[in-house]
Amino acid sequence: MLTKTEVAQRIGRLQEALQGKGIDGALLVHPIDVYYFSGTRQNATLWVPARGDARLFVRKSLSRAREESCIEDTGPFPSSKEFPQLFGEDVRTVGFTFDVLPVQQYNYYAKLLPGREFVDVSVINRELRSVKSPWELERMHRSGAALGKVFRQVPEFLKVGMRELDLAAEFECRLRKAGGEGYVRMRAFNQELFQGLAVSATAGDPGFFDGPVTGRGLSAAAPHGASIEPIAADTPVLIDYTGVFDGYIVDMTRMFVIGKLVPALERAFATACAIQDWLAANLKPGAICEELFFKALEMAEGAGLGRNFMGAPGENAKFVGHGVGLELDEFPVLAQGFKVPLQAGQTIAIEPKFVIPGQGVIGIENTFAVSEGGGVKLTDIPDGIVHL
Amino acid sequence: MLTKTEVAQRIGRLQEALQGKGIDGALLVHPIDVYYFSGTRQNATLWVPARGDARLFVRKSLSRAREESCIEDTGPFPSSKEFPQLFGEDVRTVGFTFDVLPVQQYNYYAKLLPGREFVDVSVINRELRSVKSPWELERMHRSGAALGKVFRQVPEFLKVGMRELDLAAEFECRLRKAGGEGYVRMRAFNQELFQGLAVSATAGDPGFFDGPVTGRGLSAAAPHGASIEPIAADTPVLIDYTGVFDGYIVDMTRMFVIGKLVPALERAFATACAIQDWLAANLKPGAICEELFFKALEMAEGAGLGRNFMGAPGENAKFVGHGVGLELDEFPVLAQGFKVPLQAGQTIAIEPKFVIPGQGVIGIENTFAVSEGGGVKLTDIPDGIVHL
Repeated sequence: MLTKTEVAQRIGRLQEALQGKGIDGALLVHPIDVYYFSGTRQNATLWVPARGDARLFVRKSLSRAREESCIEDTGPFPSSKEFPQLFGEDVRTVGFTFDVLPVQQYNYYAKLLPGREFVDVSVINRELRSVKSPWELERMHRSGAALGKVFRQVPEFLKVGMRELDLAAEFECRLRKAGGEGYVRMRAFNQELFQGLAVSATAGDPGFFDGPVTGRGLSAAAPHGASIEPIAADTPVLIDYTGVFDGYIVDMTRMFVIGKLVPALERAFATACAIQDWLAANLKPGAICEELFFKALEMAEGAGLGRNFMGAPGENAKFVGHGVGLELDEFPVLAQGFKVPLQAGQTIAIEPKFVIPGQGVIGIENTFAVSEGGGVKLTDIPDGIVHL
Repeated sequence: MLTKTEVAQRIGRLQEALQGKGIDGALLVHPIDVYYFSGTRQNATLWVPARGDARLFVRKSLSRAREESCIEDTGPFPSSKEFPQLFGEDVRTVGFTFDVLPVQQYNYYAKLLPGREFVDVSVINRELRSVKSPWELERMHRSGAALGKVFRQVPEFLKVGMRELDLAAEFECRLRKAGGEGYVRMRAFNQELFQGLAVSATAGDPGFFDGPVTGRGLSAAAPHGASIEPIAADTPVLIDYTGVFDGYIVDMTRMFVIGKLVPALERAFATACAIQDWLAANLKPGAICEELFFKALEMAEGAGLGRNFMGAPGENAKFVGHGVGLELDEFPVLAQGFKVPLQAGQTIAIEPKFVIPGQGVIGIENTFAVSEGGGVKLTDIPDGIVHL
């Protein structure tokens, strides 16, 4: 459970940002935004004025929200007559997270609060969320330890001939028993992920997912992750899973093979690890996100694998790392165009991967925290390919 | 995989509805809307003019979209210069599904298509989707059969002392191996579900979920579903799970008990079954949704359980059945205010349940298809409490 001190600090940082932009307050309606700034993920709306006390308006369940909320003023959602009266004349601009706010919700609030200007605070919200407090880092460490334990069990159940789907099911079952909450939240419109990917033969399939590997999935309606194809010997088996505990997500990938890999794949794996290690050593405050991406791309090209970097040739994802926390796709992104410097306490999944058509998909992924001494590995089990 | 005939019929129905409302076309951007009308769930936007041929603009992956799409004209997403040129002067009003369209996406398209009026086609879309074609009903039948098989296995793994979480993990593992796709799509803002609920002692907990039962969950960030509480003897164990196959969701609940239940719970269960059976017999075209709800409420009140119907007293959900298909929360809803008549081919999860504080949660749920002869049960295994 969140603490009042933690929530007060978060709200203080948001208020500072709102004041800096001349916005009179933020009305947060997305469940994860509400959770981050209040401590409860109920069906509720949080009002954070640029100055003064926050208020949480709860639709359902008020009793559970009262049990969890760190906002002193937590009460029922007011009637549409009362609601406008809670906002003074001095409230002229109201921030919403337009990246996730449906138009119907926007129109609903526009009717409730006529005459106010609604502005987008998506970037403010994502920037604040990208830097984790010590309390959050402790939770991310725990998520990393718990997910790592499940990865260590893979040799017990990975067998030749089992379907990718069976491998996924066995992994997910152990993850769940370890306390995994399962629901992987993503912010980007049009993206979704069911826990992770356990893919082998079909891993080179292209797909909608904004990542290096999509997997074939089970149908055109769920074109992502494990398929019903059997796992063969001497073929790379890529297990890329999230672990969600206490809301905090970590993301990691390990490679497994029953038998051995061709030298080209072994070399690609060594390149992926070298890229990861270089990036990890440079995950320090002040490092520029896109420069890290360019260096990774340069290392891939240097190994003759530029076209295979982060996806099949022509389907390459355009990043090498992504922020992670309460959502899988947080800031910062190690990609072209992200000219911002890293900050201490940001948590980033680094995932250099290669797709070599006809041979397989191979790579590594760990979640790191940015620190003065370089990236601190939160998913701390050995990186090497596990040979069975 | 969808067929071209099926997609052509769906688009024809949409065009008819657009013409009826005087809307010049619909630009569909939500993945499930795109899937329903094209056959592919890639990152893509579908243009359906009120008259003429649809076009699918794909961001990622074009190659997979071309493999699956039933839209003749499936190509890359045009540049922001080309995009506006694809829309003639005669296109003045463009429909979007405002219920799920983020404001940022709205603003993006508003910039691309200046001078057009954007209108909400959410209700048109949901009404069309509520009526399943024979092709869809066949898939829903298959989902029901597959989910039912998993329910039949529960006696093999449900034991006294296991945590709700372990029960959930064992159930989910078998569901996945049966081909369950896992990702349960919901349309309502602020709602989410990780597959289902396996709840016992804690099932009376109130929560954000718009259903009769929420469960305690694992944390304030995931306050839903199984908890780590152990399952006791002589206590009702409610297993309420979705099964998603080929994108199509069915929803069902069965009760289990190790030992026996107090007579009050047995009586409540009998009332739930009587309500379900009456509703099922009346799931015929022309029946009015809210009248079915009122009758269910009346039956609950007649049994002295009005306050416990569909939730703990004061936390009651306000419906007794919900449409289900590609999303868990489709039209129609058997609730007050829904004055519309049922149509043949609609698929509805009927779930009369009672929460009796201090005693437990009990009820039944099956997914039915509306037909002239009454509801056709898609989740066809026996309804009775399974005593172990």
